[in-house]
Amino acid sequence: MDFHSILIMMVTLIVLAYIASAVFERFGLLGLIGEIVIGIVIANLAIGDWTLLGQLGIEMGDSMGGEPSQNYEIIELFAELGVIFLLFSIGLETKVKDLLSVGKAATLVAVMGVIIPFVAGFALIQIYDGNMHHALFMGAAMVATSVGITARVIKDMKKINAKESRIIIGAAVIDDILGMVVLAIVIGMASSEGGASNVALISIEALVFVLASMAAALWVVPKIYGFFEKRNKDKPASSRTSISRLVLAIMVCLGFSLIAYEIGLAAIIGAFLGGMLLAEYAHWWKLEERVESITALFISFFFLNVGMQVDLGSLTDVTVVALSIVVILLAIATKYIGCSVGAKMGDKTLSKGSRSIIGYGMVPRGEVGIIIAAIGLASGAMSSELYAVAIMMAVATTIIASPMLARAFKKEYPPEYDPTMEELV
Amino acid sequence: MDFHSILIMMVTLIVLAYIASAVFERFGLLGLIGEIVIGIVIANLAIGDWTLLGQLGIEMGDSMGGEPSQNYEIIELFAELGVIFLLFSIGLETKVKDLLSVGKAATLVAVMGVIIPFVAGFALIQIYDGNMHHALFMGAAMVATSVGITARVIKDMKKINAKESRIIIGAAVIDDILGMVVLAIVIGMASSEGGASNVALISIEALVFVLASMAAALWVVPKIYGFFEKRNKDKPASSRTSISRLVLAIMVCLGFSLIAYEIGLAAIIGAFLGGMLLAEYAHWWKLEERVESITALFISFFFLNVGMQVDLGSLTDVTVVALSIVVILLAIATKYIGCSVGAKMGDKTLSKGSRSIIGYGMVPRGEVGIIIAAIGLASGAMSSELYAVAIMMAVATTIIASPMLARAFKKEYPPEYDPTMEELV
Repeated sequence: MDFHSILIMMVTLIVLAYIASAVFERFGLLGLIGEIVIGIVIANLAIGDWTLLGQLGIEMGDSMGGEPSQNYEIIELFAELGVIFLLFSIGLETKVKDLLSVGKAATLVAVMGVIIPFVAGFALIQIYDGNMHHALFMGAAMVATSVGITARVIKDMKKINAKESRIIIGAAVIDDILGMVVLAIVIGMASSEGGASNVALISIEALVFVLASMAAALWVVPKIYGFFEKRNKDKPASSRTSISRLVLAIMVCLGFSLIAYEIGLAAIIGAFLGGMLLAEYAHWWKLEERVESITALFISFFFLNVGMQVDLGSLTDVTVVALSIVVILLAIATKYIGCSVGAKMGDKTLSKGSRSIIGYGMVPRGEVGIIIAAIGLASGAMSSELYAVAIMMAVATTIIASPMLARAFKKEYPPEYDPTMEELV
Repeated sequence: MDFHSILIMMVTLIVLAYIASAVFERFGLLGLIGEIVIGIVIANLAIGDWTLLGQLGIEMGDSMGGEPSQNYEIIELFAELGVIFLLFSIGLETKVKDLLSVGKAATLVAVMGVIIPFVAGFALIQIYDGNMHHALFMGAAMVATSVGITARVIKDMKKINAKESRIIIGAAVIDDILGMVVLAIVIGMASSEGGASNVALISIEALVFVLASMAAALWVVPKIYGFFEKRNKDKPASSRTSISRLVLAIMVCLGFSLIAYEIGLAAIIGAFLGGMLLAEYAHWWKLEERVESITALFISFFFLNVGMQVDLGSLTDVTVVALSIVVILLAIATKYIGCSVGAKMGDKTLSKGSRSIIGYGMVPRGEVGIIIAAIGLASGAMSSELYAVAIMMAVATTIIASPMLARAFKKEYPPEYDPTMEELV
């Protein structure tokens, strides 16, 4: 292990991300967008033969067999850990009862937010080049929802306890399950191996995992907790105990991420469910601030890495640019419309502003869209041209929708009249 | 990157370390010793062809050209980050003025703790096999002090503000500089290239770095801080600001680690100095608890990795076992005597109990002794037999001395009369 090179890379990236975030916030923009933008700059900065990536020992690899360098793999690992701990901390602030209370709305938001973008993406590419495999994968990439991005906005705005946030988070979990099903079907069709029974199996596994986690949070954890608290009630809680509890929470977080991963769900969905398992005790155990600190070390790598996927070189291709613009507009419109209509169907009491929050909250495709496009490229079912378009779509929806979400939140909850602030300050 | 395999490894190791630590603490032993012992078990557990390491995708590599696997490199990275953040948090609780007030004692402890073990180790191996290169490297390995181990004991016992702790920490910094000089000389002599001017250069660089950090902590940081506080005093400090400050602190921590590494000092010495830079504001910025949380994620990998270096197979060799016992006893005795005598010379007011704390605190060789032995083995200046002995010495001194240190602390500061507890509770 070349620790020296890793240290140089870590320091450089953390400093650049910090500056970009601070500059964007100075101008009233979201810090995470600054980090994504600086990621684009880092990946594309070249002066003659000199590249910043080369300087930092980062080789991102490619689908043509180019292997990523160790330093890039560490960025990927930190990015993944960052978003896992971010979703874990969102889970820690989400009680099962609150999530269940928005269950119907969340389900309809997820379903509508899957169907409409998929149909639109599929139809567009069918018209564009008539290749069904291309069309299927673009549809699947447009289905993705990056709850990581939205979660960060919600967390920064201290809106985790708002009803709209709970609907978005719940819908994102369901969306991930549906997205996995769509992807499994698409891969099955593209590789012309049926695999329908396989799709049914993983869907059932995923559903069982989600429901079992919720049931455990409601009925099993309180019993275990009660048992240990009774045993330990005569011992004073020291800072040692507090660290010990944090390590226990880390085990739950990574353990649930692992289970989700094994089933075929995104690891972050597991992390979220793991957090929810401890939500009733998180405040008492002072977990939020501690997990937040771990997240802070890693999370910039996540946003940087999203930006780093953009190859500005592909923008010299007029077709890619034109198609990207169409796909981006379609991706935003279909997800926004699908989700806000779903929200209206699921909960008549939601105001127009609330539906708008939910619509924008589901738009960012972020890393999930990128992963699906990469699977399509690697399996040969997607062209490199359409891959570039899908990356543009995933990053652009994130950059465009996050500020809209923030603005929609501010409009619906003006700071001075914000009913959710009191409990959080 | 095989994230799945990394996740399985992380969960397994964190769970095993947690259990081992809890079991040892249950029996009144130090948790970190449990983690080192479970590290030995993990590295040596084999049933027929099945090994736990193989199961976890860990290949540790060897000096004969065997490459470590990615999973093992991640253990090494986490171990290094863990001890870096641990020393950073020790730095955060160490004010320059407090360190300077024990400067004379710390210097004498370090100097005596370098000379006596080196002479003893050198003489022993000269008598044993007459090979001067072997003797030089064993002497250098016996000079090492693993402040990481001692720091953890001190931190767990909440004794960072005790005078003895400040002397140990100060002596460890000086010890690392002296150790680096010794190692440079030994490598120079072993490779029969003079390099004396090089030794002088890096010694001066190291001294300048340490003194400049202290000067910056005393005079530069307060000015910068005052400037920014004045600008921000009308803004309320939100949790966002608090995270932003943590990221700033992380930059200082990793940046100083990098500088130390560039100079040739251990990265952890840089991390400690970086922490000291912010010590006056750490409490106000609530940094301790946040850095402690980051440390908690990583630090078990550090103790596990120390244990994992032990190859129980080498214990079938009677010569290795016999020589190990002699070297271990000599390593403990010479460091203990050297440092407690140094303490007496440097500060006449220290009680016998205090000198005993300082003596035991400097005994653990931990990862530093292992690194020096590995350099010797890789450069061909040390035999594999003596390498095994040096590893045994490094691990055994750690396992034996840490509980002695804890006991010496408890004896000198009985819990009920502890004057340092009040300010910390």
